[in-house]
Amino acid sequence: MRPDQRQADQMRQVKLTPGYLLTAEGSVMIEFGNTRVLCAATLEDSVPQWLRGSGRGWVTGEYSMLPRATVTRTSREVNKGKPSGRTMEIQRLIGRSLRAVVEMEALGERSIIVDCDVIQADGGTRTAAITGGFVAMALAIKQLVKFKALTRSPIKEHVAAVSAGVVNGVAVLDLCYEEDSAADVDMNLVMTGAGQLVEVQATGEKSTFSDEQMLALMGLMKGGIRQLVELQKDVIASA
Amino acid sequence: MRPDQRQADQMRQVKLTPGYLLTAEGSVMIEFGNTRVLCAATLEDSVPQWLRGSGRGWVTGEYSMLPRATVTRTSREVNKGKPSGRTMEIQRLIGRSLRAVVEMEALGERSIIVDCDVIQADGGTRTAAITGGFVAMALAIKQLVKFKALTRSPIKEHVAAVSAGVVNGVAVLDLCYEEDSAADVDMNLVMTGAGQLVEVQATGEKSTFSDEQMLALMGLMKGGIRQLVELQKDVIASA
Amino acid sequence: MRPDQRQADQMRQVKLTPGYLLTAEGSVMIEFGNTRVLCAATLEDSVPQWLRGSGRGWVTGEYSMLPRATVTRTSREVNKGKPSGRTMEIQRLIGRSLRAVVEMEALGERSIIVDCDVIQADGGTRTAAITGGFVAMALAIKQLVKFKALTRSPIKEHVAAVSAGVVNGVAVLDLCYEEDSAADVDMNLVMTGAGQLVEVQATGEKSTFSDEQMLALMGLMKGGIRQLVELQKDVIASA
Amino acid sequence: MRPDQRQADQMRQVKLTPGYLLTAEGSVMIEFGNTRVLCAATLEDSVPQWLRGSGRGWVTGEYSMLPRATVTRTSREVNKGKPSGRTMEIQRLIGRSLRAVVEMEALGERSIIVDCDVIQADGGTRTAAITGGFVAMALAIKQLVKFKALTRSPIKEHVAAVSAGVVNGVAVLDLCYEEDSAADVDMNLVMTGAGQLVEVQATGEKSTFSDEQMLALMGLMKGGIRQLVELQKDVIASA
Amino acid sequence: MRPDQRQADQMRQVKLTPGYLLTAEGSVMIEFGNTRVLCAATLEDSVPQWLRGSGRGWVTGEYSMLPRATVTRTSREVNKGKPSGRTMEIQRLIGRSLRAVVEMEALGERSIIVDCDVIQADGGTRTAAITGGFVAMALAIKQLVKFKALTRSPIKEHVAAVSAGVVNGVAVLDLCYEEDSAADVDMNLVMTGAGQLVEVQATGEKSTFSDEQMLALMGLMKGGIRQLVELQKDVIASA
Amino acid sequence: MRPDQRQADQMRQVKLTPGYLLTAEGSVMIEFGNTRVLCAATLEDSVPQWLRGSGRGWVTGEYSMLPRATVTRTSREVNKGKPSGRTMEIQRLIGRSLRAVVEMEALGERSIIVDCDVIQADGGTRTAAITGGFVAMALAIKQLVKFKALTRSPIKEHVAAVSAGVVNGVAVLDLCYEEDSAADVDMNLVMTGAGQLVEVQATGEKSTFSDEQMLALMGLMKGGIRQLVELQKDVIASA
Repeated sequence: MRPDQRQADQMRQVKLTPGYLLTAEGSVMIEFGNTRVLCAATLEDSVPQWLRGSGRGWVTGEYSMLPRATVTRTSREVNKGKPSGRTMEIQRLIGRSLRAVVEMEALGERSIIVDCDVIQADGGTRTAAITGGFVAMALAIKQLVKFKALTRSPIKEHVAAVSAGVVNGVAVLDLCYEEDSAADVDMNLVMTGAGQLVEVQATGEKSTFSDEQMLALMGLMKGGIRQLVELQKDVIASA
Repeated sequence: MRPDQRQADQMRQVKLTPGYLLTAEGSVMIEFGNTRVLCAATLEDSVPQWLRGSGRGWVTGEYSMLPRATVTRTSREVNKGKPSGRTMEIQRLIGRSLRAVVEMEALGERSIIVDCDVIQADGGTRTAAITGGFVAMALAIKQLVKFKALTRSPIKEHVAAVSAGVVNGVAVLDLCYEEDSAADVDMNLVMTGAGQLVEVQATGEKSTFSDEQMLALMGLMKGGIRQLVELQKDVIASA
Repeated sequence: MRPDQRQADQMRQVKLTPGYLLTAEGSVMIEFGNTRVLCAATLEDSVPQWLRGSGRGWVTGEYSMLPRATVTRTSREVNKGKPSGRTMEIQRLIGRSLRAVVEMEALGERSIIVDCDVIQADGGTRTAAITGGFVAMALAIKQLVKFKALTRSPIKEHVAAVSAGVVNGVAVLDLCYEEDSAADVDMNLVMTGAGQLVEVQATGEKSTFSDEQMLALMGLMKGGIRQLVELQKDVIASA
Repeated sequence: MRPDQRQADQMRQVKLTPGYLLTAEGSVMIEFGNTRVLCAATLEDSVPQWLRGSGRGWVTGEYSMLPRATVTRTSREVNKGKPSGRTMEIQRLIGRSLRAVVEMEALGERSIIVDCDVIQADGGTRTAAITGGFVAMALAIKQLVKFKALTRSPIKEHVAAVSAGVVNGVAVLDLCYEEDSAADVDMNLVMTGAGQLVEVQATGEKSTFSDEQMLALMGLMKGGIRQLVELQKDVIASA
Repeated sequence: MRPDQRQADQMRQVKLTPGYLLTAEGSVMIEFGNTRVLCAATLEDSVPQWLRGSGRGWVTGEYSMLPRATVTRTSREVNKGKPSGRTMEIQRLIGRSLRAVVEMEALGERSIIVDCDVIQADGGTRTAAITGGFVAMALAIKQLVKFKALTRSPIKEHVAAVSAGVVNGVAVLDLCYEEDSAADVDMNLVMTGAGQLVEVQATGEKSTFSDEQMLALMGLMKGGIRQLVELQKDVIASA
Repeated sequence: MRPDQRQADQMRQVKLTPGYLLTAEGSVMIEFGNTRVLCAATLEDSVPQWLRGSGRGWVTGEYSMLPRATVTRTSREVNKGKPSGRTMEIQRLIGRSLRAVVEMEALGERSIIVDCDVIQADGGTRTAAITGGFVAMALAIKQLVKFKALTRSPIKEHVAAVSAGVVNGVAVLDLCYEEDSAADVDMNLVMTGAGQLVEVQATGEKSTFSDEQMLALMGLMKGGIRQLVELQKDVIASA
C-alpha cells in the first residue's frame, strides 16, 4: 500500500492555478499533491551571443528551491556562491524539454526564460516544473499572439513530465518524497502530447534493473502524462 | 490622489495566511496589497561559533526575491555568485529587528532562521518581511512551547514595520512601488507592540528633508504599525 | 564619565590633512580621535550603463578596512571572495550621502568614485568616511574647475556625518569603539551644511528606545555636524 | 555511410593502457577511437560527513577536459570560478554508475575518487570515462587486496557505458563528434557485466523520438557494452 | 649519489613527442624523466583589450596539474573557485618566457595561448612546461607560415628552461621531486638559444646562499639548456 | 640622468616611522621616496593545519594596494572575487623572505602575519614591503620578549630587499615607477644583514640580458641593502 493510499498507476491530485503572478506575462502555480512549484515565463528581446543574427530564438529554464520547501531547511545556494550540481542538471533538463516543442524560427530572435521555484517539495519537483513550465510559457505566448507581437504561436506540441519508480518491488507512478527515498529505481519521462518521447532518464543507484522493469515504468508514466496534457489543455484554453 | 485611491495615512490591505507551508514549524504568507512575502521560521540546535558555550541563542533573517516578483525579470543572485548589497542590507535589518524582541537567554543555545522570500514585489517588501517574519517566528515558538521543547516563550514583545515617504510633497504611509519610485524621501520604521522604536531609517537621495517632514512620517508609520500588531496578535492567537 | 573625559556633547579632536596622496586629484586623511580614514576621489569619464546618454553623472563610494585597523586582526575580504554585508551597507550609505549634494546634470556624464580606507578604527569610521569623502570630492572638483575641465562646481551643499548613542543611559556624541560596543542605541546622522537631513539611522539591537531618546541624539548630532562643516570649509578653502 | 566507414552496430577501436601513471594506485588511458580519457583512482581513508560512523564507503567521480581536447580551444573552468553544468552532470553520472557496482559495507569507511580527464575529445567522453573509470578503480582495489589492505574486493560487477543515436534516420552505435553533432536523438546506456541496467538516458532535443527508436538504440548499446566488458576483464586480469 | 644515479651536471632523459594531439595546431608531450607535461598551442585572432588597434600580438601561458599527477592526490583548483598562488606564478612565468622570444609586431593582432597540463609530476614541471611550450608554439607557427597565414615566423630565438639546486651541500642539475623537497636552495633559469638570460629565480627558503653557490648553479643550468635547445631544434625541424 | 637626479647607485630617501598604528603590536610606515607601504605584524597562537603538533611556527605575508596608490585608479581585488596573480606572487615572496630569517622552533606553534598595504606606489613596493615587513615583525617580537611571552627572539638575521634595473642601457639602483616602466631588465634582491642571498629574481621581458648585466645589478643591490639594514637596526633599537 502506498503512503497516501494511491493505486500503483494513480497520480497525486494535480492542480494548476494560472495567472498566479500579476507581474509575469505567463505564470502558474502547479501542485502534484503537496509538491508546489511556481512557474513564470519571461520573454526577452535578445538571444545568447552564439544565436545572434541567426533569426532563431532560445528557451531556457531556471530552477530553485526555497529553503523551507523541505522539512529540514536547505541552505540557499547563493550563500555557497554557485548552484549545486543537482540544480544545474534540473535546469538543463527543463530547458531541453521545453525547447523540444518550440519552433525556434517562428519564435524569432527572442528568448523565453521559464523560472521554476519550488515552494514546497514532496517529490517530483522537476517533473512538476516541466509540466507547469510549459503552461507558463504557453500562457505568455498566448498573450503575445493576442497582442500581435507574434503572428502565430511557435509552440508545436504540448509537453509534460512525470516520475515513476520501483518501490518495495512494485512499479508505481508519481513518487512522493517518502517513496522516492525508498525507491530502488527512479525514472523520469518527458513526453509530448502526441506521445513522442523527449527525455528518458532511468537511474538505479540503489539497485540495478531489468529491461522489463523499465518498460513497466514507461507504461505507467505514459498514462500519467496523457492525463497531465489534458489538464494543460483545459487551463491554457480557459485562461 | 494616490495611485490606488488610498488616504495619506491609509495602509494597503494586509493579509496574513498562517501555516502556508506544511514543511515549516512556523510560516505565513503576508500580503501588503500586491506585495506578497512568504516567511518561514526554522529552529536549529546550534549557534554561531562566537556564541558557543554562552547559553545564549541567535536569530537571523534571510531575504530573497523570486526572479518574476518584479515586472521586469530580475536575475537570480546565485548566478552572480553572491547576494547583492541591497539583499545583505535587508537581511541584516530583518535579523536586528527580530533579535530586538527575543530574550536570548530564554532561547538557549538555539538559532532561529527566518526566511523571507518575496513572491511578488510592489513596494515595502522589507517591512512586510519583518512583520511576517515575526509571525512565522512566533508560530514556530508556539509549537515548541506546546510540545514542551521550550518551557516558556523567549519573545518579549511584538515587532512590526512599515514604510512611509514624501511623494509629490505629501507625506504618505505604506508606499507601493509606483510611489516608492517617485518619493523624495523614503522612511522605514520598525517598532514594538509597546511603541518602542527598534530601527529608524530615513533616506533622502532624491531630495534632502527637514525635521518636520521626518516627524510627520514617523507619525504615519506609528499608526500603521499599531494596526499591523493587532493583525499579528489575531493571527498568532488563532493559529 | 566618558572613557576619554569628554562631555556628552563633545566631539573627539577632528583633524583633516588634505592632499595626503600625490597620486589622487583629491584626497584627505581624516581623523576623529584615533579613527583615521584615508579618503581619495577619482573622476572617471564614464557612467554606469543605465546612465549612458542621459547627460547625468554618478557618484559612488567604496569602503574597506586594513586588517590591522582593529586591535584584533580582521581578515581581508578579498580572501573570502566578496565584501561583507557590513562593508556593502556602508558603501551604499557613503554613495547616497554624497549623491545628495551633487547636481548630476552639472557633473555631466562623469563618475566620481570616493575611496574610503580605514587605516585605524576606533568607532565612527562610516561617519568619518562620509565627512572626509566629501572633502576629497570637493578638492578633486576644485582642481577640475581650476583647470577648466568643468565650468562650475556641481556641488550644491556641504555634507557631513556623525554618530551618537545612548551609553549607560546617557545620550553622548561621536562614540569611540569602547562606547559603541556598550551602547544600547546607536544613531548616525548625515546632514547638509544648511541643516537639511540626508540620512537618519537609528538602531536599538541591545535595547529599544523612545522618541525622546531619538530626538536627544538628533540634537547632539546636529551640533557635531555643524562643527564638521566649518572644518570642511576651512580645509577646502585653504587647499 | 558513417564518417569512419563503420557499420551501424560497430564500435570504434577501443584501447586500454593500464598503469599509465606511476603516481596512482590504479590508472588507465582509455581510447574510443580518437577520444582519449585518462582515468585514475584514488583511495582515501575518509568519507563525507554524512557517512561518518556508518561503516560504509563512498565512490565519487570527477571529470574535466583539457583546453585543447577540442578542435576549438575550450576555456578552463577554473577561470570561470566553477564547473559548468555539463561537467557537474557528467561527474554525477560517473559517480552513480560506479557506486552501482560497489558494495559499500565491504569497502568500509573509505572513499574512492575516480578522476577522468579528457585528453582528446571526439564524442563519447562520458561513456569512455565510465568504462575506463571502472578499470582504474578495479586496478586500485586489486592492489589493496594484494597488499591485504582489503580482505576482499567490494566490487560486485563490471560496469561499462556506451552511446548511440539516430543520425540521418539511422540508429548507430558509439557516436563520434561529427555524428553526435548531427544526431536527432542521443542516448547513453550504463550496464553491468550481467546485463542489468544502471542508467538510461535518452535525449531528443533536435527531434522527439518513438519507443521503437529507443529500443533499437538500446539493442545496439547492449551489444557494445558486452564487448567493452570483455576488454575490461582482459585488462584487469593481466595487470 | 643522486636518487637516480645521475652525475651532478646530468639531466634526466628528455623526450619530446610532437603532434601528440590531433586537435591542436601545435602540441608536444615533453618528459623530463618521470615528469610529463602536455603542451598545446592555440592561435586566436584577437588580443587583450589594451592591445587592440596596436598592431601587436600577445602570448600567454596556462598551467594546471591533473589531480593524480602527484603521488598524493591534489584537489582540482576549480573546486576552490580559483587558481592557487603557485599556479598563477607559474602561468605568469611561462607567459613572460615565451613573450621574450616573440616579435609582437610580426605576430600582428593575434594571441597565442600555450596550455601546459602536467600529466605526471616529478619535479621541474614549470621548466618542462616552458621548454615544451616553446616547441608547441613553434610547431603551430610553422603551420601558419606553411599555409601562408603568416608571411614569416615571429619567433626570434629558441627558449628553454631548467632547474638546479643545492642538495646536501652539492650543486646538482634538473632536480627530481625527491631532490627538490630536500634542496636548501632552488633555482630556475630561462635562457635563449643564443645564451641570453630571460629569467633567473633563486630561492633560499630552507637556507640562505652565497654568490658562489648561485654562480655554480647558473653554470649547471646553462649546460642543461644548451642540450634542451638542441633537442627542440631537432623536433621542430623534423615535424 | 635619472628622473630625480639620483646617481646610478643611489637609493631614494628611505624613511621608517615605527609604531604608526596604535592597534598593532608592531607596525611601521616605510617610504622609498614616494612609495609608501604600511607594514603591520600580528602574532596569532595557531599555525596552519599541516604544522599542528610540530612545535614549529609559521610566518606569512599579505600584500594589497589601495585603489588610489596609483595615478590611475586600480579596482579593488575584492570586487573581482580573488587576488590577482601579481598580488599572490608578491605575497608568496614576502612570506618566503621573512621565513628565511626566523627560527621556527624558537617561535613555537605561533603564526606571524605581516600585512603590507601600499598607500602610495612609485615603484619598488614589494621590496619596501619586505624591508618594512621585517621591521614590523621585529618590533612585535621585541614586545613579546619584553613581556616574557617569548624567552628569546626567534629572529636570526636582518633581511631587506631592493630593486635594480637596466634603463636606457645603464644599470641603476632602486627604480621609481617611471624607470621601472622603461626598464629592459628588472631585478629584485632579498639579502640578509650578513650578506647571504635569500631570493634573486631577474626578468627580461622587454629584452634579454647577459651575465655581466646581472652581476652589475647584483652589485648595486647589495650596496642598497647594506644601507637598508643599517636603517632597520637604528629603528628597531630605538623603538
